[in-house]
Amino acid sequence: MLVNETKIRVRYGETDQMGFAYYGIYAQYFEVARVEALRKIGHSYKEMEEKGVMLPVLEFNVNYKAPAYYDDEITIVTKITEWPLSFKISFYHETYNASGKLLNTGKVTLISVDKQSSKPCRLPEWFTSALAPFFNE
Amino acid sequence: MLVNETKIRVRYGETDQMGFAYYGIYAQYFEVARVEALRKIGHSYKEMEEKGVMLPVLEFNVNYKAPAYYDDEITIVTKITEWPLSFKISFYHETYNASGKLLNTGKVTLISVDKQSSKPCRLPEWFTSALAPFFNE
Amino acid sequence: MLVNETKIRVRYGETDQMGFAYYGIYAQYFEVARVEALRKIGHSYKEMEEKGVMLPVLEFNVNYKAPAYYDDEITIVTKITEWPLSFKISFYHETYNASGKLLNTGKVTLISVDKQSSKPCRLPEWFTSALAPFFNE
Amino acid sequence: MLVNETKIRVRYGETDQMGFAYYGIYAQYFEVARVEALRKIGHSYKEMEEKGVMLPVLEFNVNYKAPAYYDDEITIVTKITEWPLSFKISFYHETYNASGKLLNTGKVTLISVDKQSSKPCRLPEWFTSALAPFFNE
Repeated sequence: MLVNETKIRVRYGETDQMGFAYYGIYAQYFEVARVEALRKIGHSYKEMEEKGVMLPVLEFNVNYKAPAYYDDEITIVTKITEWPLSFKISFYHETYNASGKLLNTGKVTLISVDKQSSKPCRLPEWFTSALAPFFNE
Repeated sequence: MLVNETKIRVRYGETDQMGFAYYGIYAQYFEVARVEALRKIGHSYKEMEEKGVMLPVLEFNVNYKAPAYYDDEITIVTKITEWPLSFKISFYHETYNASGKLLNTGKVTLISVDKQSSKPCRLPEWFTSALAPFFNE
Repeated sequence: MLVNETKIRVRYGETDQMGFAYYGIYAQYFEVARVEALRKIGHSYKEMEEKGVMLPVLEFNVNYKAPAYYDDEITIVTKITEWPLSFKISFYHETYNASGKLLNTGKVTLISVDKQSSKPCRLPEWFTSALAPFFNE
Repeated sequence: MLVNETKIRVRYGETDQMGFAYYGIYAQYFEVARVEALRKIGHSYKEMEEKGVMLPVLEFNVNYKAPAYYDDEITIVTKITEWPLSFKISFYHETYNASGKLLNTGKVTLISVDKQSSKPCRLPEWFTSALAPFFNE
């Protein structure tokens, strides 16, 4: 299992008139958390696109329990728990505020797509190889 | 059942470098679609907050099938299918492009919260009354 | 002179915790207003990019006088006042709320860039021709 | 003079179909840079609002020279150069990419507003006192 933590501070422009971090901003927050989780295994998502593989989102789910507020530094715990991977990869997210309160949980499933053909393709071998050690523990 | 259609044109700032409408923007698109669905029954969400009831999002789910592109005029079909309502209300969304292709489906569940106490409360009677005729057909 | 009016309704996700439409959102609002002004002369910005010309922003200025609020339907008056055009084009914007109050003024200057070479280029002749009648009055 | 540096990584959702960080996102980037500059003098903007003073934006100007790209870590240099301050405060920003290339410059002027009365007010004494040492060098 791969586990990574990412800290993000809520921007003013991300709040809404309820005074909450707008619920839709978690799409961006989880995206940042995913990218940092991939960086941990030695690869960047930018590199993946440059090598011809895109990972558009197939499913996006969030369950909200409590809001984050302006200037809060939140922690997003990101996990990849499922193996083997082929065309899809799922990330599980938990968002906590600075007091350790669970704010929400999310699951995001991406699909591997060949940039040239725009068709689904296997996740690249260099990527699954880099991820494998986290599942051999 | 309440059904409403909302048209939205994809802004340049909403695209990403894949050339797609960013997957996270559907949180805003569905929000616009919900608000227009409520306006159809003679009430605005703005009015609801002014009368002391907030509807923060409890669950947000999207299944993506195909992307929207810059300048596309998409149609979001919004449905409220479940009755009776008490503390929660769910909206079902289907997004189509101008060719009638289904781009994604979503479900968003809101919870009714009293603005003063910040506690869950029943949906206001004036609101459920306005909605009732759509379920008596 | 080309003058066009565009109406935009403030989305919930565009408000901030002051209860205002976030000041940064006017970049998107003015972009929508520009695109609608171009559509008025019979061309879309999408078409321009497809024909190999991009119009990135060179200068962006806004003077804010009063805020817009959630669910407000604002009117953006967009003008192209300067002729002849070569590499650059400036748009002047005025934003009004439903009561006719001036909320802000803006000026956005774009530069014409060849998509292949990434270098500045003259505005396409088909575009300036379509715009010319508005300056012959 | 107060000078501060803030690093921000460009998110995927902040790119547009040109492959650039969308020009409008600098409103948020500069906002983050301002807030971090204030934190440097021992105060947070959050605290300022809690103490009853808001700082809405009065003027916003950006001159763009080159784009930032996805996953770039950019550095925003923020300066307060003008003293004395009374009702207004201006921030000067310069954005650099990781190679040290200047991407854009900006100036943002805020106005001090009393939260209760919604009227302009002097910047709080506790705030100007904390800022004063940077102008006595």
